[in-house]
Amino acid sequence: MIKGHGDDAYHFERPMVANFSSNVYSHVDMEPLKEHLRQRLDSVGHYPEPEPYTLERALAGRLGIHAASVCVTNGATEAIYLTAHAFQDRHSTILAPTFSEYADACRLYAHYTPLEKPAKRSEMPDQVLHDVLWLCNPNNPTGGVIPKEQLVKAIEENPETMFVIDQSYGFFTKEELLTAAEAVRYPNVIQLHSMTKRYALPGLRLGYVTANPTLIERIRAVRMPWSVNALAIEAGLYLCEHPETGPIDLEALLAETQRLRKALNAIPGLTAEPTQTHFFLCHLQKGRAADLKRWLAKKHGILIRDASNFEGLDAGHFRIAAQTSEENDLLTAAVQQYPEEHR
Amino acid sequence: MIKGHGDDAYHFERPMVANFSSNVYSHVDMEPLKEHLRQRLDSVGHYPEPEPYTLERALAGRLGIHAASVCVTNGATEAIYLTAHAFQDRHSTILAPTFSEYADACRLYAHYTPLEKPAKRSEMPDQVLHDVLWLCNPNNPTGGVIPKEQLVKAIEENPETMFVIDQSYGFFTKEELLTAAEAVRYPNVIQLHSMTKRYALPGLRLGYVTANPTLIERIRAVRMPWSVNALAIEAGLYLCEHPETGPIDLEALLAETQRLRKALNAIPGLTAEPTQTHFFLCHLQKGRAADLKRWLAKKHGILIRDASNFEGLDAGHFRIAAQTSEENDLLTAAVQQYPEEHR
Repeated sequence: MIKGHGDDAYHFERPMVANFSSNVYSHVDMEPLKEHLRQRLDSVGHYPEPEPYTLERALAGRLGIHAASVCVTNGATEAIYLTAHAFQDRHSTILAPTFSEYADACRLYAHYTPLEKPAKRSEMPDQVLHDVLWLCNPNNPTGGVIPKEQLVKAIEENPETMFVIDQSYGFFTKEELLTAAEAVRYPNVIQLHSMTKRYALPGLRLGYVTANPTLIERIRAVRMPWSVNALAIEAGLYLCEHPETGPIDLEALLAETQRLRKALNAIPGLTAEPTQTHFFLCHLQKGRAADLKRWLAKKHGILIRDASNFEGLDAGHFRIAAQTSEENDLLTAAVQQYPEEHR
Repeated sequence: MIKGHGDDAYHFERPMVANFSSNVYSHVDMEPLKEHLRQRLDSVGHYPEPEPYTLERALAGRLGIHAASVCVTNGATEAIYLTAHAFQDRHSTILAPTFSEYADACRLYAHYTPLEKPAKRSEMPDQVLHDVLWLCNPNNPTGGVIPKEQLVKAIEENPETMFVIDQSYGFFTKEELLTAAEAVRYPNVIQLHSMTKRYALPGLRLGYVTANPTLIERIRAVRMPWSVNALAIEAGLYLCEHPETGPIDLEALLAETQRLRKALNAIPGLTAEPTQTHFFLCHLQKGRAADLKRWLAKKHGILIRDASNFEGLDAGHFRIAAQTSEENDLLTAAVQQYPEEHR
């Protein structure tokens, strides 16, 4: 595991007033679900289903696919590790920069050798003649989305390549994505999903895989029993029945993201890169993101994600997930105060 | 994974009035902890620590060992799978009959070949010249405990053998067991623990491994980040601070277990085997445990554990975990009504 993920407020002694460090948009009213969980707390007194079939059926119903095409997991992280385990007899390529867990999981099962020059997302699809190709769409940390047409063409023209597509941030873009119902028709596509990013409940740990039943069977075969806790299952069932929970005005959030990005981009010595979702990369021309992060946390109680540990990025990179306009203004004002010689 | 674990009330359409099928003693007042979790429900809004160091430190404090000797896991099940993964370069032997997950986990990592004749617990310690030896103490499903002196002698006389000792039911016996503080001194002992059996919270998923730091380092290296959910961590911290939560009168429970065992043993056609904990094996002379289980569930709303799928047991075996004396009397009365020709 790399050291230094987001949402690491526990590293600092003072409380944080604003948190831009994880890709979870936390200004969502989850009170109805939380109240439901409070009432269902007794569910922790029993074992969850060894394999969470009931939730798999409910999710399949919502997605318009067969239950045999769904594998519920202990967060999207377990989805990543199970996929890496199930395909340990193949070789993995990962388009960089991206979420470090794909590489970590493939390394754990000994089928990832970093290329001398990391495969870049911009090289899609001409150079995808790989064995297993991992991509995150929208991509963490860049916020980029591969055009659907381009992705479908790559999938269809490279039937020998297994496409593992992490759509954990799928809700947070207006770009058209491959739906689960479309993807399960391909024998060479595995989609990974998070249920807790959209609903800002990352502490619960709830994710799932969708794919052709033959692929799902392979993934379920390496999943340990009882990996998904009882409250996560309760939450998942509730969200299948109440998908309108925690409404997010996505248009407004994405517009606010662009406003914040432009404001940061206007600060001398700092570049804020384009994005198609609610988070984006920034780059300091001179200084180190690690120093800016520490300064913002200690002086302003503001948490950002030092992105220098993403393969393919450098010491100047950090990642910002947009929050409310008030919080975003706090961030801009704070970064403006950061001494120019460090930018 | 084997089909047919305990606590499977979801298989039946009617509600169960008494549950003897899982080894969890559920008559524990966990209301103070549940109230604490209700108040801490907001913790699901943040990522848990990627590696649950804070809880590992708290547990280490309680056990009188170093934090580097503790690895917190997503239930004792993850403890089993991580251990099997970390030692996949070795060969595992499992003393039968026992919990099926050891064999399943070792099979998943391709280092378990069932012996023609399963290694029996009674053969401890003379024939332990194995590579990795898995044992459950107290043992599921028999309730037997290996005398401490005999176990220590085996550990010391077989330094080449790695002893993986699952103490998930350690609280539920009066027999002396190897403590975590004693065990971490050995370079060839790994102990697996459950926090949710003692406290009847199996839905939360919380377990841990204790061992020499060198061994723990190896196990942590194969653990994925965020595997333990935020509420399980909250519960673990609470239980470290309030170990008196959910008091159980163990003497009374074990006495009641013996009373139930004798009552069942007196039923013609049925044997109830000796135990050193709160659960035990029964055997039907003629009939099948699967039929008795179905009959009890449908006719009496009573759930038992068909134990015929434990390696080394046969179709007549079932397992009973003692509950309250009223419930135990219900069970005895119900089994007495089971037609004699099926016993």
